[in-house]
Amino acid sequence: MSKQKKFILQESEIPTQWYNIQADMPTKPMPPIHPATKQPLGVDDLAHIFPRECCVQELDTEHRWIDIPEEVLEKYKFYRSTPLVRAYALEEALGTPAHIYFKNESTNPLGSHKINSAIPQCYYAKQEGTTNVTTETGAGQWGAALSYAAKIYGLDCAVYQVKITMQQKPYRSSIMRTFGAVVEGSPSMSTRAGKDILTKDPTHSGSLGTAISEAVELATTTPNCKYTLGSVLNHVGLHQTIIGLEAEKQMEMAGEYPDIVIACFGGGSNFGGIAFPFMRHNLCDGKKTEFIAAEPDSCPKLTRGQFRYDFGDEAGYTPLLPMFTLGHNFKPSNIHAGGLRYHGAGMIVSQLLKDGLMRGVDIPQLETFEAGMLFARTEGIIPAPESCHAIAATIREAKKCKETGEEKVILFNLSGHGLIDMPSYDSFIKGDLQNYTVTDEMIAANLAELDKQ
Amino acid sequence: MSKQKKFILQESEIPTQWYNIQADMPTKPMPPIHPATKQPLGVDDLAHIFPRECCVQELDTEHRWIDIPEEVLEKYKFYRSTPLVRAYALEEALGTPAHIYFKNESTNPLGSHKINSAIPQCYYAKQEGTTNVTTETGAGQWGAALSYAAKIYGLDCAVYQVKITMQQKPYRSSIMRTFGAVVEGSPSMSTRAGKDILTKDPTHSGSLGTAISEAVELATTTPNCKYTLGSVLNHVGLHQTIIGLEAEKQMEMAGEYPDIVIACFGGGSNFGGIAFPFMRHNLCDGKKTEFIAAEPDSCPKLTRGQFRYDFGDEAGYTPLLPMFTLGHNFKPSNIHAGGLRYHGAGMIVSQLLKDGLMRGVDIPQLETFEAGMLFARTEGIIPAPESCHAIAATIREAKKCKETGEEKVILFNLSGHGLIDMPSYDSFIKGDLQNYTVTDEMIAANLAELDKQ
Repeated sequence: MSKQKKFILQESEIPTQWYNIQADMPTKPMPPIHPATKQPLGVDDLAHIFPRECCVQELDTEHRWIDIPEEVLEKYKFYRSTPLVRAYALEEALGTPAHIYFKNESTNPLGSHKINSAIPQCYYAKQEGTTNVTTETGAGQWGAALSYAAKIYGLDCAVYQVKITMQQKPYRSSIMRTFGAVVEGSPSMSTRAGKDILTKDPTHSGSLGTAISEAVELATTTPNCKYTLGSVLNHVGLHQTIIGLEAEKQMEMAGEYPDIVIACFGGGSNFGGIAFPFMRHNLCDGKKTEFIAAEPDSCPKLTRGQFRYDFGDEAGYTPLLPMFTLGHNFKPSNIHAGGLRYHGAGMIVSQLLKDGLMRGVDIPQLETFEAGMLFARTEGIIPAPESCHAIAATIREAKKCKETGEEKVILFNLSGHGLIDMPSYDSFIKGDLQNYTVTDEMIAANLAELDKQ
Repeated sequence: MSKQKKFILQESEIPTQWYNIQADMPTKPMPPIHPATKQPLGVDDLAHIFPRECCVQELDTEHRWIDIPEEVLEKYKFYRSTPLVRAYALEEALGTPAHIYFKNESTNPLGSHKINSAIPQCYYAKQEGTTNVTTETGAGQWGAALSYAAKIYGLDCAVYQVKITMQQKPYRSSIMRTFGAVVEGSPSMSTRAGKDILTKDPTHSGSLGTAISEAVELATTTPNCKYTLGSVLNHVGLHQTIIGLEAEKQMEMAGEYPDIVIACFGGGSNFGGIAFPFMRHNLCDGKKTEFIAAEPDSCPKLTRGQFRYDFGDEAGYTPLLPMFTLGHNFKPSNIHAGGLRYHGAGMIVSQLLKDGLMRGVDIPQLETFEAGMLFARTEGIIPAPESCHAIAATIREAKKCKETGEEKVILFNLSGHGLIDMPSYDSFIKGDLQNYTVTDEMIAANLAELDKQ
């Protein structure tokens, strides 16, 4: 009866360094390259778009531990640590012998893990004298986090929000405006990239790829403005390792170690955040934890994409990145997990996947919402549609344990809550949601088009 | 730089008893009485509406401490303890020497303190063999909490939600449905009370008073169904003392004791929750803490109401309760703090106010949203419109400290977050919100009508 449910660190126990997995990777990630010259890009090449310190972190393959600046730690204390929770009620509902834990990043006032990287990115931008930041946002979680971080550092903030999620999740735009940001639906007519996209397809409902193009264009054409990104890049994953480093201490408090670590997957930030700190024990200490990234089956870059150089955005403004990709011209279906509607995987994760150190699973939309509903009705937290993918993958593994009788320890990251996504749940309850199919032919045709460019 | 911001209790430190202030009150609250016979009501009279154990607690003026059932404690651990936070950033923005702390009940997955009473009410209902529960809800916080609590105890749940807040906060209905509840807009055509109200005024936008009438009617006409209430009653305030009891331990961790305790005020549940445990030290140990209940100036029962017996609901189905009231026929303006749109104050608080042991302040809507915006942009949490009243009252006191130079310690309860209330913030940002006036004449006329009944 008196089983401990939550494992909580005091402020003084919050980790003071991020973990840089690049230092421990058996194969380092291939470098980003210039689209025209095909030459690897250095810090100076990237620093006209991103805050310089982020670029240094991006390309750092040497230092295993990076100090979290004191000022960033102070801001982390606004909401960290987040609880590690044993999901007894979910276990009971599933009748599984597995021990299910989740790291509850939804207790952040911004509602998701994204704030973990928004704070340091704005801190570094401010340090170098930047006055404006801009970004894209899918579900709006990243945009909301950046809006708040920009506000506390006195930076102006402009956000390009994917048009379809602006309609699906109108409250997220309101949150950004409450924090003082300017919000524009993407594709918009305010950039050349947006105009070009709308000219080709006036009904384009947007994607992370299109919104990135617009934000990058704004950053490069506005004085004293830096672009920031909420996922995909190495330094974002680095900042997110605070999640896994806390979880590691908390799993110790629980007296267990995960056999399986699971997170949903858009560009890789919350996956990397929870997985990398545990993966270092696979890489360095002979642990055999399994790492599972859960993606939508309608945007299956990990399970059915190709490893190759590709643009990070739809218009082709970014460097070429080595990634598992469906092609930067891939147009994702209008699933409600807006944060997972992205064509490519981050560079580190792509290399780890290539090297067999982790695996992807793809999950249909209806299965994710069924998982989310069960989680809500047992654990009391309505999960973000993105996080529902992690829960669905966890349930699959827990059911396997039920069959085999194995008492595996499963840890997943609850990256955010779904309170802003209630219309999606409404649609699910009414039976209005559907699964989307992507055929092999569609993916192949899309990738073939890249080869022509 | 390394000042501690959050004070957190481990699960093992969560209080295991509620505090019953009735045992320590110099004047006990007057009893609820039967409208026809005017006789005081006993447990048996109340128990055909409410779970019996709640009725016992309601009328208990003897026992200072009430054990929290083990099973309820287990459920509390899903989200408790909640953090006590030092609002350094808000202090800095105000330039005040005051030390501002807030108890962050918004970290609950249900988004507000209401779950603290929903769980024990459903537990007791289940214990006595009830299969159905019903209730009213204003802003929807209580309805959401009850829906979840009913689900975990396997009870069917029907919620009458005030029509105006159903429109202002549509996501809350979705949350209730996600937890499996049936949600009906009130006044509805599904009860006689609702029909009568709509016949008199077809455009009636509802109030807590009307919704209570409907829920009570459903409970008394449905077999095996109990009515539950989210505020006003003594046992609800009792359950909420978990907030203040935790805060007491946490203030000790911070090495301070509050000079002022502040909470917003609808019926009194979150106010009582944070205030009563500290008030016991005024009553028993000679402390001189000041207690401030912040109400909307458009619904000013504490500051301008009359202490008298009145109905708890609009239709007059409830017992007569001794309360500061604007009259059960009072129709509150359509302010966005739906949870504060109620004509009367709970019995305990009414007696405490009468005895000068606390005071009320009334705050115009625009001032509350200004306070909420400042809080969001400093502390990163978008507060519920209800909680904005507590923040506004806190800011008033902190500004007084700035004038006098006093380093007062102010503690307020952040009863909930405002993520479901983003349209309200949108309206405020657009300049579409207004203040509402209630003249003394309106209040007097309203109360005079009571005397005729």
